[in-house]
Formats: sequence, C-alpha cells, structure tokens
Amino acid sequence: MTIAKLLSDLEAGRVTSRALVDQAEARIAAAGTASPFSTVELDNARAQAEAVDAARAAGAALGPLAGVPLAHKDMFERQGARMGRGAHPSAAYVAENTAEVLSRLDGAGAVDLGRLQMSEFAMGPTGMNHHHGAPPNPVVPGAIIGGSSSGSGVAVAMGIVPAALGSDTGGSIRLPAACNGVVGIKPTPGRVPMSHTMPLSWTQDCVGPLAASVDCARRVLSVLTGGATRAETQETGPLRLGFDAGDFACDLSPDMAQVLDEERKALVLAGHADRDLDLGWLGTLDEPANVIAMGEAATVHADRLRAHADSYGDQVRTRLVQGAAISAQAYLRARQIRDIAQGKIAEVFRDVDVIVLPMLPDVPPQIDALARLEGASLAGMISAMTRFARPASVLGLPAISLPVAWTDRGPLSLQLVGAPCSEDVLADLARTLETASLRVPEPA
Amino acid sequence: MTIAKLLSDLEAGRVTSRALVDQAEARIAAAGTASPFSTVELDNARAQAEAVDAARAAGAALGPLAGVPLAHKDMFERQGARMGRGAHPSAAYVAENTAEVLSRLDGAGAVDLGRLQMSEFAMGPTGMNHHHGAPPNPVVPGAIIGGSSSGSGVAVAMGIVPAALGSDTGGSIRLPAACNGVVGIKPTPGRVPMSHTMPLSWTQDCVGPLAASVDCARRVLSVLTGGATRAETQETGPLRLGFDAGDFACDLSPDMAQVLDEERKALVLAGHADRDLDLGWLGTLDEPANVIAMGEAATVHADRLRAHADSYGDQVRTRLVQGAAISAQAYLRARQIRDIAQGKIAEVFRDVDVIVLPMLPDVPPQIDALARLEGASLAGMISAMTRFARPASVLGLPAISLPVAWTDRGPLSLQLVGAPCSEDVLADLARTLETASLRVPEPA
Repeated sequence: MTIAKLLSDLEAGRVTSRALVDQAEARIAAAGTASPFSTVELDNARAQAEAVDAARAAGAALGPLAGVPLAHKDMFERQGARMGRGAHPSAAYVAENTAEVLSRLDGAGAVDLGRLQMSEFAMGPTGMNHHHGAPPNPVVPGAIIGGSSSGSGVAVAMGIVPAALGSDTGGSIRLPAACNGVVGIKPTPGRVPMSHTMPLSWTQDCVGPLAASVDCARRVLSVLTGGATRAETQETGPLRLGFDAGDFACDLSPDMAQVLDEERKALVLAGHADRDLDLGWLGTLDEPANVIAMGEAATVHADRLRAHADSYGDQVRTRLVQGAAISAQAYLRARQIRDIAQGKIAEVFRDVDVIVLPMLPDVPPQIDALARLEGASLAGMISAMTRFARPASVLGLPAISLPVAWTDRGPLSLQLVGAPCSEDVLADLARTLETASLRVPEPA
Repeated sequence: MTIAKLLSDLEAGRVTSRALVDQAEARIAAAGTASPFSTVELDNARAQAEAVDAARAAGAALGPLAGVPLAHKDMFERQGARMGRGAHPSAAYVAENTAEVLSRLDGAGAVDLGRLQMSEFAMGPTGMNHHHGAPPNPVVPGAIIGGSSSGSGVAVAMGIVPAALGSDTGGSIRLPAACNGVVGIKPTPGRVPMSHTMPLSWTQDCVGPLAASVDCARRVLSVLTGGATRAETQETGPLRLGFDAGDFACDLSPDMAQVLDEERKALVLAGHADRDLDLGWLGTLDEPANVIAMGEAATVHADRLRAHADSYGDQVRTRLVQGAAISAQAYLRARQIRDIAQGKIAEVFRDVDVIVLPMLPDVPPQIDALARLEGASLAGMISAMTRFARPASVLGLPAISLPVAWTDRGPLSLQLVGAPCSEDVLADLARTLETASLRVPEPA
C-alpha cells in the first residue's frame, strides 16, 4: 500500500477515507497482541476522514495527503491526548499543545489513527520495551523490530499505514526501518520542526518518516519540511558516490558484503562515479556521540530520575545514571570532537555527493541470539548494530535507510548519507536503487 | 590623545609614526614598574611605523589607522612572538599563527607596540595577578585596575596608546575600562573574529577595544569587524531607553545613584524616551553564567591543569578545579537557562533600544579595602563588581562602558547594553553622553 495508490483510489472514488479507517481498525483488531499501536484513536480518525471525504465530494482543494491514514510514534504531543513515550504508565501525561509536525500533517489532510509503540523514552536500538514488551517482527520471524521507532517500523511493514513518524537521535528511524524492511529518512537537524516532541538529545534529535517506499517517505517529508524538500523524484544526473575502503564498513556478513558490492557495480553501470573513501575515522565518533547523547538525555530526565528512579527500566535507568555522571568537560570535549568531525566530513563532501554504507552489518538480528549474549558480547552486538547509524546523527547529516535485497533470513538495507540539506539528492538516488533492485517485495 | 588627533598630526606632517613610537618608548621607560606592558616590541613597531611614514610620504593610499600606535592584551597570537597570557612563565609559547584581529589592525596601518599585562589566563575581575603583580591605577590612586584586560585599561589611561585590544567573557573589557576611566566596547559575539586568540569560555568570549574616547573605540572596532560597524558617530534620533526600576540595579553608592538619575533626566531632556524596566531577573543569570564559563574554562585547561597544576595561581586553580567538577547536566541546564533568558531579553528589546545600567556600583574599589575582605565578604565584593557586567556576556549582547562623571574618589561609569549587533546605536548614544557630560577629563 503506497500513498500514491491510496490517493488515486480516493480521487477515483474507489474508496473513502472513512473506509480506510475502518479497514485499519479491522487489521489492528486482527493483529491482537501483534499490534504496534500503544493507543488507537479511531473516533478522531473517523472525524478527520469524514471531513476529508466531505471536502473531496464538495470539490474543495485538498492537501497532498488528503484522506491518507497515518500513525505516529507515541512522542508527538497532540492537545488533549495522552503521551505515553514508551515509558512506565506513571510517566504518561495529557498534552497541552500539538506538535508542529502533527499540525503540518493535519494541514495536509492526513488522518491520524493513533500512537505507536516505541522504546522507553526513545532509548534503545533493539525495540525491546521493559514495560510493554514488543510486537513480533512482521517480515522476519524471530528478529528484533529495531528501535526506538519500533512501532512505526512494524505498522508500515504490516501495511496498516503507508508511513509513520519516527524520531532519530542515533539511528532510531533507520534501524527499525532496516529491521522491518521499510524505508526510513532521517533529515538534516533543523529541517523538521521539533516543537512539542519529546526531547532526548536535543543537539542530535530529528523527526522523519518510516514508509513503505521512497515515494511515500518523501511525500510525508515534504509536508514535514513545509515544502523545503521535494515530494517527488526527479531524474538524477550522474552522482559521485563514496564507498568506504578503509576499516569502517568492516565485519559485514558475506550477504551484506556481496549486496554492497553488487549495488556499487550496478550504480556505476547506471552512470554514477564511484570513489573509495577512508572512513575509518567515523568509528571514533561513537564515544563522543554517546557522551553528547547521554549528557543531554540525563539533563532532560534529571528531575524525573531523582523523583521516580524505580519507574525506569533497568537498562534505561543505568544509561541515564551514567549520563548524570558525565562531566561538563567530557561533554564539551565531545562537542569539540563533533565540531572537528563536521569540518572533516564537509571536506569529504567536496569530493562526493553521497556516501553509501551498509545500514546493519547483516539482516536484522534474531531475538534469541541477542538474549543469549551478556555483558561485553551484548554491548558488542548493540555496538555493531548502531555502528553505521551514529555518524550521520553526530555529524548532523541527512540519511536514508532502504532495503535493497531480500534473503531468506530477512532484508538487507543500505544507508545513503549526504551533506546537510541533501535530502532530495538522497531520495532521488534511493528511488533509483529501489526501482533497479526490484528485489524488495511490497509490504503486504 | 585621540586617534583623530594623531591622524591629523600625522597627515599634517606635525609628527611621524616613527616619532610616536619613540615617544611611547620614553613613556614606557619612564613608567618603570608602573608600565602596563608585559613585552615591548619596539623593533617591530619601528619597522611598521617607518613603512607607514614612507607610504605616507609617497602619497600612497593609507588605512584608517595608518601610523597609530596601539598595544594589546597578551593573548592574541602573532606569528613568532611569545604569548604570555598573564600566566606563569612556563605557560608561555611562541605563536605559529597571527590572530585575525591583529592582521586586520596591521592591514589598517596600526603600529603594534607590544603586549599588555592581563589577569592570569584572563580570569579575574580585579586585575591582580598572582605571578606578575599589577601596575598601579594611573587615575585613581590606590584603586584596583580591573581585569582581566588590566594592562589595556592602564595603557590607555596613561595615554601611551589611544586604544588597546582586550577580551571580555564576563566583563573583562568593561571592568578595567571603568576602573581606569576609559571607554570599553564588548561587541556582539561573532562580530569580531576569534581565530588564534586565547579561549576562556568560547560561547561567551569577545574581543573589543578599550580606548580614550568613544570615537577612538569605534574606529578600532570598525577595523576589527571589517567595516560591519561604523567608524564614526551619526546624529542619533530619539531612542527608547530602559532603566531598571526593579531590584537589579540596587546597592548603588549615593554618587552612582545620583549620576544615573541625572543622566536619565539629561537624556530625556535631549529628546530620548525613558522607560522603567523590571530587570530583577538579570541577577539570576550570575550562577548559570559562571557554570558556563567555568565548565568551558576547565575544558580549555584540562590537560594543562593535570600536568602543571602548581603553575597556576591559587585563585585561578581553585576556580578551574571547581569547573572540572561541573556535571554535563549542570552545564546544559545553565545553557538552557541562557536560551530562555535570551528569548526574554529579546522581548525587552521590542520595547526599548538601549538599556542603561551602572557599570560598577560605585567608583573603582580600593585595593586595601579588597585586601581586608575574606571569604564570603570578598566573594560578595567580587560579585557586586561583576553584577552589572555579566548579563550582557551571558545574553550575547553588545555593551559599552564609559565614564560619565568624575568624583574625587574616581570615575563613575555607565553601561549601555543593546540588542545583538546594535553597536552603532550604542556608540552613537555613548558619544552623546560623552559630549553632554563634559565631566570626563581627557586622559593625560
């Protein structure tokens, strides 16, 4: 189910928005405990849908998402609605304002079905949730769903919505996109307004879509950016593509290594130029990225952590307590390292337009495999999972995760990373990959 | 001695730049231990002066400060020259680059006589220096000279130079200006380039002039900003002037209270509008300003402090060690408070053009009085001294300190604070005050 198909069905009168809401309701009900929703808000959705149907019937001018059902990570405020934030129920509150991103989607005519599950306070790349568990991966049996925008990845992969908002501080859009075989766009910080969204690490936080296709993702992104990014693909001229030839994109599975190699060859055949880059230094950003993220997260949570420490899950509490122990000096050094690294990557982008990286080192990890790991091995696994996601976050770059091949163990996703505000270039190239590979089954 | 007078003498052939350097040499020598210089560099100065004299004789186009002798706080790098930074001799190093501000002054034809004393690593509002002592106050016997741009204030007050560069992180230009009865301009952060200057708290550091008059100060500032600020006064239209009617500008001496009141009346008579403001909340910025400054300063000094703790003076070391203990959380909260305060002051500047404040609560404090104080009383005295300086620093606003009255105990200075990038408005108004009051004796 793509937004383009839904819009053409709606425009042709083959379906109403109200009927789409009813279909979604049925599918959510049928999913039972596999539902990715934390709160379904069908009354509001039906009212929105009926208003769009009426406007369409009356021949009124309609927004670019008129009548399209969406759903969002449970961290965007909507006035009067409960914000759960993936946390212990005592952390929930009724919002007094509406996030600008939701207002923009409302203005575009989108219908909001409700709020989706997420990692506790958006912390945690596996998508596991101490308080609420997690729905199963709908496309890779037994695999993790990825986090922190876990429900967003699942809802799109299940075909309940063609797109859903997520947020990304160190991979939280791109990792669940990769785990569920959908597309995720992390925009340049500042391009999508953050008002009345839950903060985590405010110098790295971004809001963006997870979606069934590149086209779906960019239609939503265009609304989120107020038209600062294009809603549609254009013919992409030859690009200069950079591939890591150092030791950054290491320890890949044979499948991933092969796919990366095949895609590189295909892109060169399609007329793009490829260049070897030595991106080993990106690996050194992991520690400063974490210091910045946890220093800021601990600040966000300082009061709540003091008053309600027991209400946090063990892992999240541990990370926040560690964050509270970070010195101003360590934090500022991490920011100085980030400044230097941003200068360094700007130089890289004088020579290339897009850096092509793996998104994960392999298909999404199996829950069982993670559960067997402990201590250092688990940390190593988590680190391997987030390794390719973090640089774009700490460097403030836009990035797209998209599945480009499908093995019997699950999808293999690549990541396209560009200079600040190059979302359109990335999306145009992603669309080429999506079309050319033809190996990605449309989500059910 | 003003820049305008020097330039007219140079242009009329009444004096050569080379002769000015020789005069300066004689005055520095005559001052003996009262000299504000840490290093005099007369060979370089003579070469610069002779080059300007030759160019003038040849009828070449000359820069706006051609042949004018200046001198600067010992924290601006000049390639091949020793940077002392007011610190223990072991902290000195030979610079590999030249600060952009020095390059701009060179380009304007200014002659650089050498480097001036300063507080250790620019920390310390009194101007006392643990390692090097301090010259006496040339205009107020027994009074402190203020810091951290202590030598800059003294050199201008002694009439050795018409202007000198200082730096200001929490008052370090404006306090020595007030203590020595000269003019000081702290510009908006970012307007004057900071390359190859010693950092202290890089989100608050600014470079600007201390000078014999408003005109001298703005001629130098105009060169420092690359012409982004005007070099000359324009007729100022009616301004909306804000005065604190709350409890911020409290605990003033009767003399200062009277001067503030008289100046307010005079400005209203001159056609400006006056408004009462409640600026009590500015006092709450002291603690976050200090947390930001010391968190950043401790980061700057981290390696050196670990390796050479004994080389720091007691007070500076104590402050840096305290800074090293600041948590990322405390630092980030302080920045959040700054963000909120910047929003709040932006609202104030919708209603007024300039805020008029005292610079110090009275004339410059006497060294004896400070020496008698200990612990809490000393801290209270320092806090009273810096109280009016800090808000402009933490809020990122330009400010001018200028003497407006002269008692038998010393000068009384006011501070004009404006919205970001309002240096020209402030300087135009300062010139009005300077002209109208006619109570400031020209420095000897």
